[in-house]
Order: sequence, then structure tokens, then C-alpha cells
Amino acid sequence: MSNNIDARPVTADGVRRAAERIKGHAIRTPLIENKFLNDAVGGRVLVKAEPLQIGGSFKFRGAFNLISQLSAAERERGVLAWSSGNHAQGIARAARHFGTQATIIMPEDTPALKIEQVRAFGAEIIFYDRYSEDRETIAKPIVEKTKMALAPSFDHPDIMEGQGTLGLETVEDARAMGTELDAFIVCCGGGGLTSGCATIVDDMSPKTQMWIAEPEGFDDTWLSIQKGEHVSIDISQRTICDAIATPTPGRLTFPIMQKLVRGGVNVTEAEVGQAMIFAFKYLKIVAEPGGAVALAAILSGKFDGKGKTTAITISGGNVDPALYEKILGQQS
Amino acid sequence: MSNNIDARPVTADGVRRAAERIKGHAIRTPLIENKFLNDAVGGRVLVKAEPLQIGGSFKFRGAFNLISQLSAAERERGVLAWSSGNHAQGIARAARHFGTQATIIMPEDTPALKIEQVRAFGAEIIFYDRYSEDRETIAKPIVEKTKMALAPSFDHPDIMEGQGTLGLETVEDARAMGTELDAFIVCCGGGGLTSGCATIVDDMSPKTQMWIAEPEGFDDTWLSIQKGEHVSIDISQRTICDAIATPTPGRLTFPIMQKLVRGGVNVTEAEVGQAMIFAFKYLKIVAEPGGAVALAAILSGKFDGKGKTTAITISGGNVDPALYEKILGQQS
Repeated sequence: MSNNIDARPVTADGVRRAAERIKGHAIRTPLIENKFLNDAVGGRVLVKAEPLQIGGSFKFRGAFNLISQLSAAERERGVLAWSSGNHAQGIARAARHFGTQATIIMPEDTPALKIEQVRAFGAEIIFYDRYSEDRETIAKPIVEKTKMALAPSFDHPDIMEGQGTLGLETVEDARAMGTELDAFIVCCGGGGLTSGCATIVDDMSPKTQMWIAEPEGFDDTWLSIQKGEHVSIDISQRTICDAIATPTPGRLTFPIMQKLVRGGVNVTEAEVGQAMIFAFKYLKIVAEPGGAVALAAILSGKFDGKGKTTAITISGGNVDPALYEKILGQQS
Repeated sequence: MSNNIDARPVTADGVRRAAERIKGHAIRTPLIENKFLNDAVGGRVLVKAEPLQIGGSFKFRGAFNLISQLSAAERERGVLAWSSGNHAQGIARAARHFGTQATIIMPEDTPALKIEQVRAFGAEIIFYDRYSEDRETIAKPIVEKTKMALAPSFDHPDIMEGQGTLGLETVEDARAMGTELDAFIVCCGGGGLTSGCATIVDDMSPKTQMWIAEPEGFDDTWLSIQKGEHVSIDISQRTICDAIATPTPGRLTFPIMQKLVRGGVNVTEAEVGQAMIFAFKYLKIVAEPGGAVALAAILSGKFDGKGKTTAITISGGNVDPALYEKILGQQS
């Protein structure tokens, strides 16, 4: 299964090279400051608005960085990925850009909007039941037969360095706004975004504390960091934060996070809903549940932003209208 | 009523000076391109995402430009404005920035979210019934008594030039993306945004056709342009596009629009709803109904964008959650 998983080290310079590769292809999403958010937190909060990224989440960054480095022969054979949706969109779009065929293994319960947006870019989808089937078991014979390149959703240096470009832009844009970050909170699933951002932030701005936010019951990464070893959690429970529901941190992402992440927060679905409503009312940005956990972490006060300058990501905005409507309707 | 309405000409250099004044205070909102939108239109579409502006609409630009030029004595006496909401937010925020007191005359049926966001900046609100009362009649004795400076919502050179900065950024950013605009469609109410943008676009990019989009039944500006004189329409009908429901174009805005606007489109409430849903699903931007009319104009095909490069504004995102929820629920 590791035909193209290169376990070379993830480095700040690797993130810088990724930034050069995606330049002009990915969107340099804005870093937004909002008075209502600052007031609610009692500090300065800068929001990296990644729903505006191509594909509606940060995933295009890593996908583009990986596929751009495939050889002509590899592109000829195509790429295989599995994803609950956002990585699938990133891969489908980057694959189309480089003229390679993407095949994506996706859970049957993926929001319809994400499926539509993957198909629009010509990717082939293989569905599986995430509660009974193992996607690696499905992928194995396909890879053996086709020799397709694997594009893992987080555990690959090219993916991790690609996602790290979000951290690079955040530190640069915060400086352009005249400030240094005391902390940076990232929405954490398997750790691709976190490990990439932690690597570049540690290099550019070592005084900035890296934090992660996870959904309650899916805090495998913070549990693992605290215990000093991989902790696996039960992901058969359902969650609205489908995009970041992972059983355990990645083999490659974990050591980096263990070294560089200073704190973790887990947030309830109610707190996530409140954060999505806040983003709607004050930021005018559509946030998906999994993309709103960092905002929920700081709005709930579970991360104390008082008197600090904190950057957070809203990492994606791919949410089905029916769920969004339901969450908006829950506000008091 | 015209104590500070200076009828000096509105010029491209005036817009450039406004751009210098707002620099570092207003957000340079992103110009976004989206594959789904390009595909739906059959051309290239660049979206100026103004819901991300301070106050959630373009109105902060003009408000800041006007208040920044008041004398210390004028700031001491405060500013008076009337507005259905977005201009009120712009004025309240700019007034707070310069330490002057804003008083805003607002319709009773202004969405609650807009009222909350005006009050948060310390503005005083005077409510009136837009279907039975005349806001100028309410304003007159206040102005006579207090000598407050008037901050009209569109008919003032400082306001028009301030709003024109949106057009300046759009042309510049389109060029940075390697393209020239065939057309630019602006959401049109009283014409502050349209006249300011038309002035600068005519100077920077004279081949770009200026178009306006208005709600069906509220197309006073295009009717007036076609007739060559001010046409007044009945605005006692209700519309979801409350932000741009004006009876007739402005005294100062109209001659500019008459000279520079090449075409007009009016869109139904159903088309506006579809545009808001499109912005939600694909752009991840919260659009308010009045802010979505230009997107509706190009998505509906009433403006034919095939084979062209067209810029449009989403001019604001201040929409009550309950209305938004209802519109999302209407999608097929």
C-alpha cells in the first residue's frame, strides 16, 4: 500500500517549495479580522478563510503538491485516493489539472454536494460503507492491478508539506497586518494540515504555540499526544464533523505533532453549531462542521484567547444545505 | 438638507484618493474565480466578494471616505444617516473609528442582525415606518437642531468615490489574474456603487461595459436610463432585496450612470434565491438577497456571459438566519 509513500522528512523548506508549486494555482485565501470575534474572545483573532480555497477546503494544496511531482508514467496510470469528501475534491481537481485520472474511494454517506463536486472533475468514485468495510481492503487489489499512485489523505510528505502552505501564508499575512501570533489553532483529523503547519510555523515563528481542535469523542490526536503513543478511538459513532473523524493520527504526522503541538481542545456538536452560526452572521463564510472546530475552540472559551493574538483556520465549507439549514434553525 | 452635500464632480482621481484613504482600514476583498460558475455561464466570471468587507457589505468604503474628510468641528457634532441597514453599519463603524457619534434613521422592518450590528458600534437608531413615513421629514428637524453632518447613503461625491474603490480593485485584480474585463455587473440601488465604479472603470478600462442588476419591480435606474430622465417607481411593495429597494436614482448618481451604464437586467426573487444558493454551495460566501442580484443576472442568462470575461459583485451578506434558512430550504 505504500508504493509512493516516501518517508523522507517533512521540512520547512519542503513547505516553501510546495508554496512555489501551488502559486497561481491555489488561492491565497484571506486572513480575516472581525470586531465581533475579537470582542467575543477578548483578544485578537485572525481567521484563515479556507472555504474560499479551490474545492472549498485546504485539501487542494496538498493534492496539487503531490500530483505535480508525479512522473509522466505515474500520471499515465492515474491516482487512487480515499476520502470522506474534501481530499477527494482536492485530488479530483489537481488530477484534472495535470491530465491524470483520479479514482476515489468514498463513504456511502458522503454529503451529496461533495460527491457532485468530485464527479464534476471527472473522477471515478467507488463507494464503501464506513461502518462495516475497510477502505484499505478495497484499495489493495485495485492498486496491485492498476499500479495507480496512492494519494493518501494525510500520511505523505507531499500532502503534509502542501497543507503546510496554509500555515506559511498565515504567518506572513499576520506579519503584514503588523502582528506576531501567540497561538495558531488548526482543525485536526489525521494530522496532515496540523503537521505541515506546525513544521513551517516552528521554523518561521517559533514562539507561536500550535494548538489543535478536535470534535468531542474524536480527539484521537490529543489523546495520543498526551499518552505519548498512538491511541485508537471508536469511529463507528456518527458525527456531524465527518471531514475530520479519524481513528488515530497518521504514522508520519504523529511524531511531528507530538513534538510541536502544545495544546488540544475538544468541542461538542453544539459548540460547533454555534461556531458555524457565528461564521454565517459575522464572517459571511460558510463553514462545514469539521472546518469549524477551531473557531468553536476559541469561541467556547475552551482555548483562552484573552489578551492574545490567535490565528485559527476555518478549514472547509463543504456542507449540505439541509444540514446547514438545520443548524441555522437551532440558534436561539 | 444639503448642508454637506458637495456637488463637486466625481472623478477617477477622486476614487484613487479614496483608495489611499481606506487603505489599511477597509479590507481589500478577494476577486474569486470558480469553475462551477464559469461552467454554468460558459465564460469567465470573477466575483468581487464584498460580504467579507468590514460590516459585511461595500458600504464601509464610502462611509469611511466621507467621515475621514470631516473637520474636527463636524466630527464633534456627529453624523446623521438613513439606511435600510448596510450603509448604517458602514457609517456606525467609520464613525466609531474617527470618534464621532452616528445617528441612524432606519426602517422598523430592518433585519434584526443589521440592527444589532449597528448598535454594537455605539450608533443611535431612530426607527420609522418605511411604508407610511418619510425619512427626510424625520431628519430635517434633527439636522436643523444639531447641525450634524449628513452622510447620505449614495448621493454624495465622497460616498460615490469611496464605493468606486471596489471597481478600482476589481480591475487591478483582474489584470493581476491576466485578464481584461469585457463587462462588469454591479448590484444597483440608489447608484452610489454603480456611479463610483463606472467612473473609475471608464478611466482604467474604457472597453469594459458597465451593467447594472436590479430586482424585478425595483428597476428604477434602468428604466430611468432608458427613458433619459428620472423615473420613480412604487416601493410600497415588499421585496427580499431590501438593501437596494430605491424609488429613483440619485440626483448626482443618475447623470453618471446615464452616461456610462451600457445595460440593465432585472431579476426575480426566485432567481435571487437560486443565486444565493449557488453562492452557498460553490463559493462558500453568504450573500444577502440585494447583494446577489448581479450573480442572479449572469446565472439566469439574462446577462449573456458566454465567451466573455465578466466581473460581478456580491455586494453584501447581511441576511437574517431565518430568511436564509427559508431560501436554502426552497432549493430543489
